[in-house]
Amino acid sequence: MVVSEETTPHVEGDAPSKKAAKKAAKTAEKQQKKAEHKGASQEQSEASEVDVSDGRYGSYKLLQSDGSYRDRVYVDVKDLSEKAGQDVWVRARLHTTRAKGKQCFAVLRQNSSTVQLLISVNDERKVSKQMVKFTGNITKESIVDVLATVVKTASPIESCAIKNHELSGREVWVVSAAKNQLPLQVEDASRPETDDPEALKIRVNQDTRLDNRVLDLRTPANQAIFRIEAGVCRLFRDILTKRGFVEIHTPKIISAASEGGANVFTVSYFKSNAYLAQSPQLYKQMAIAADFDKVFTVGAVFRAEDSNTHRHLTEFVGLDLEMSFKHHYHEVVDTIGQTFTDIFRGLQEQYATEIEIVGQQYKVEPFKFLDPPLRLEFPQAVKMLKEAGVTVGDEDDLSTPDEKLLGRLIRAKYDTDFYILDKYPLAVRPFYTMPDPNNPKVSNSYDMFMRGEEILSGAQRIHDPEFLTQRAKHHGIDIKQIASYIESFSFGCPPHAGGGIGMERVVMLYLGLDNIRKTSLFPRDPKRVTP
Amino acid sequence: MVVSEETTPHVEGDAPSKKAAKKAAKTAEKQQKKAEHKGASQEQSEASEVDVSDGRYGSYKLLQSDGSYRDRVYVDVKDLSEKAGQDVWVRARLHTTRAKGKQCFAVLRQNSSTVQLLISVNDERKVSKQMVKFTGNITKESIVDVLATVVKTASPIESCAIKNHELSGREVWVVSAAKNQLPLQVEDASRPETDDPEALKIRVNQDTRLDNRVLDLRTPANQAIFRIEAGVCRLFRDILTKRGFVEIHTPKIISAASEGGANVFTVSYFKSNAYLAQSPQLYKQMAIAADFDKVFTVGAVFRAEDSNTHRHLTEFVGLDLEMSFKHHYHEVVDTIGQTFTDIFRGLQEQYATEIEIVGQQYKVEPFKFLDPPLRLEFPQAVKMLKEAGVTVGDEDDLSTPDEKLLGRLIRAKYDTDFYILDKYPLAVRPFYTMPDPNNPKVSNSYDMFMRGEEILSGAQRIHDPEFLTQRAKHHGIDIKQIASYIESFSFGCPPHAGGGIGMERVVMLYLGLDNIRKTSLFPRDPKRVTP
Repeated sequence: MVVSEETTPHVEGDAPSKKAAKKAAKTAEKQQKKAEHKGASQEQSEASEVDVSDGRYGSYKLLQSDGSYRDRVYVDVKDLSEKAGQDVWVRARLHTTRAKGKQCFAVLRQNSSTVQLLISVNDERKVSKQMVKFTGNITKESIVDVLATVVKTASPIESCAIKNHELSGREVWVVSAAKNQLPLQVEDASRPETDDPEALKIRVNQDTRLDNRVLDLRTPANQAIFRIEAGVCRLFRDILTKRGFVEIHTPKIISAASEGGANVFTVSYFKSNAYLAQSPQLYKQMAIAADFDKVFTVGAVFRAEDSNTHRHLTEFVGLDLEMSFKHHYHEVVDTIGQTFTDIFRGLQEQYATEIEIVGQQYKVEPFKFLDPPLRLEFPQAVKMLKEAGVTVGDEDDLSTPDEKLLGRLIRAKYDTDFYILDKYPLAVRPFYTMPDPNNPKVSNSYDMFMRGEEILSGAQRIHDPEFLTQRAKHHGIDIKQIASYIESFSFGCPPHAGGGIGMERVVMLYLGLDNIRKTSLFPRDPKRVTP
Repeated sequence: MVVSEETTPHVEGDAPSKKAAKKAAKTAEKQQKKAEHKGASQEQSEASEVDVSDGRYGSYKLLQSDGSYRDRVYVDVKDLSEKAGQDVWVRARLHTTRAKGKQCFAVLRQNSSTVQLLISVNDERKVSKQMVKFTGNITKESIVDVLATVVKTASPIESCAIKNHELSGREVWVVSAAKNQLPLQVEDASRPETDDPEALKIRVNQDTRLDNRVLDLRTPANQAIFRIEAGVCRLFRDILTKRGFVEIHTPKIISAASEGGANVFTVSYFKSNAYLAQSPQLYKQMAIAADFDKVFTVGAVFRAEDSNTHRHLTEFVGLDLEMSFKHHYHEVVDTIGQTFTDIFRGLQEQYATEIEIVGQQYKVEPFKFLDPPLRLEFPQAVKMLKEAGVTVGDEDDLSTPDEKLLGRLIRAKYDTDFYILDKYPLAVRPFYTMPDPNNPKVSNSYDMFMRGEEILSGAQRIHDPEFLTQRAKHHGIDIKQIASYIESFSFGCPPHAGGGIGMERVVMLYLGLDNIRKTSLFPRDPKRVTP
């Protein structure tokens, strides 16, 4: 690129000078040479011919905010149909381009939208064969500014999102050139996963995608997935804020490996060591003891677990909430359940387009839910599994395959992909879980599931320091290690319950995707800390 | 507390049985004994006397969600004035209590609200001297359920937030008892900072506060500060979402100390090392290169800087944004500036009560701002400082004292506490900062200030890989270390600019507080990683 060259800045309203246009043409040509395109020498000779498009195509100099074109109005690709018959400026990526004779067919892409661009030799419109060739040689994924007329198409263009209109180009400028050899083709990365034996089978494998995430994220499906993800976070916060929750921020660097010490990352902290928080739970509880009543927090949580599965990350985003209640922890369970129902409905209503776009690449079974959500007790689940021929102990936790089977059984019986499992055996829950007052083997705890996978684990917590001490001892926990945790309940603490949600799992399971790496912008697992 | 005792659960609508009430009285008494209150033995003898309040006071057994009282309706303290003449249930903290003869005066506290509770011996209302004494002996900061009549007061109670009404108690139950010896008194921690020589001077020092944050956070001012903080985050996100920004989540664990290697925390990552991100900047930029156009992220950032000042934390919450633009980075500067103006206005409009409550403890000078915000260029600031007698080089960065002085000069001249300083010298900015196209010594970069302290630093970034390489070399940076950063711009990237905001600083400076630890829920500094 030409960063040090001092070209005359283009002035708004003026056509670029012939000198500047020639320079731009020369720049474009240099670029092509660098990219080792064949035909560069031919282009050079053509550049010196008479060119009716002179000053209407080329490469901008590096955009350094010099004041030119400040008032130019651009139209978004998705809105082009509304501009039929008009000349508009569009800034977009060159998704594909192919020049043949007097025409160049290109596709412009912007987020999840695409439109066809036709550059056709036409003296009246001042489109030259040089301009056609220039456009045909722009590297894929380059960002271009195009001045074009929006034209109705004779027949729908099935390969583009905008089907009934195309662009007839008048000017084409390269804003930022992509290099010629890309590590993956966005076209390949966007190809639908289909069972059609006739379909093109070129795919991009997951590591190549993640290694080159900047390119991979440009696919329409990924553009949609991360907009949906932003929606999940926004809905979670808005729904809880309306219910009187206060957002808090809890520290990620903590002094002690509070939850047992296993699976925790160690940090060098000045002359000592510290740890990365595996959950904000203790801090949420302290916020409750500090009178914030109902709190939520959205933030990174860390698990140093050497699990290389489709659903584990070493760093993920926790959607956590904790809530004091007056007399029964079901006040909290109902609040969380309703929050999920509201999120699911919000996604349906506000992200229908994005969900559809994801569905064009991946098979998405629409997510089903009930309002109010289904709540079963643990023994009911055990009974359903036993009836299906599975051996489950009444005081055992469910295995992952059992959970998946249960998800299918519940969907068949109740027609819902979301449900709450209440009253887990006390033995399989952490020491701070409140036992059931009527059955010492049962606890006031719950998990929530989407498509048979756990996405939330929660419970009423023990808010009494003496009972908490007794339960911790029962679990063989060193009381000294958790002294400050226990102490925070000795200044008066309301009864409370809460839970932690794995955000990436919610998005993965809502859309029915097969791997959590598809819903983490830059995923972290035991083998990946880049990019 | 009595966690193992099996008392008959209270059933909604029924008065507790005499047996249960006696048990409760006994429990309360046990508690008092444990707290080594004098008079416990006297109470014991009184408990066996005839008690007209029998079954109307005591301690609940541990609240384990047994189903009792599920439908009881509670009224918030702040809403009590609307219930004059009615009997209501209130759950709140016992802020203070003092029994004298036949009366007990107590103050109930809920978040930032307080109300007086009077328990007065009265046979008709079934309030006994035993109940008065019991209430007088409940430890401060315990959580209580009170059934009381809302009564208009003869003269305003100046020491409470609710001045014209008080509660006349009929039942008092301890929900969760605080221990008798508290490491700090919430009353002391709430005391206004005043110059009045006559005022009580008992204060709680900062370390005692932070060591016992669960108690410290209960002060009305802290309850308000962290609600305002939640407001800042909500406004930031809502304003940007409305402007088309997409929320993203960037990894905190990174493979290379991207910003030079100094001041970075090292993490043990399985068999290798990784680092904690000092800012999400590189990831925000990659999101721009990946077509997300306008992004923001709210999350933890980490600085291993051994700075023990009023405004440095080792972990804080970054409000970061990055935005592609068409032709001039001022498109971005204007967006950020307007975002601040909208946040300030939102706080004024939606948090007036909370701001006033903070003002009752700390001197708060109302925050002044202009719409549109004031934008000055760096040389103008240098000129103002020089006129004030300060020696500043045209290519030097401003020192912290100079920035503070500039803040005062600008407030005097322009009547604003918020302003933007644009066009910093290139020499004092990072390598990825875009130089000004017309002056090689100047850059397209800016800082933003509140009350003379920097709260945002930002710039147009270099989006061209070759120019970026050239600038990095100029700064003596090892190109290999940042190869993947540079590469992300080689697939076509729109021009873009952005900035990072320190959330805690914004809240501190908006309110005019003197220490950033006042606006971090659980602050982290070189000497503090607990609680």
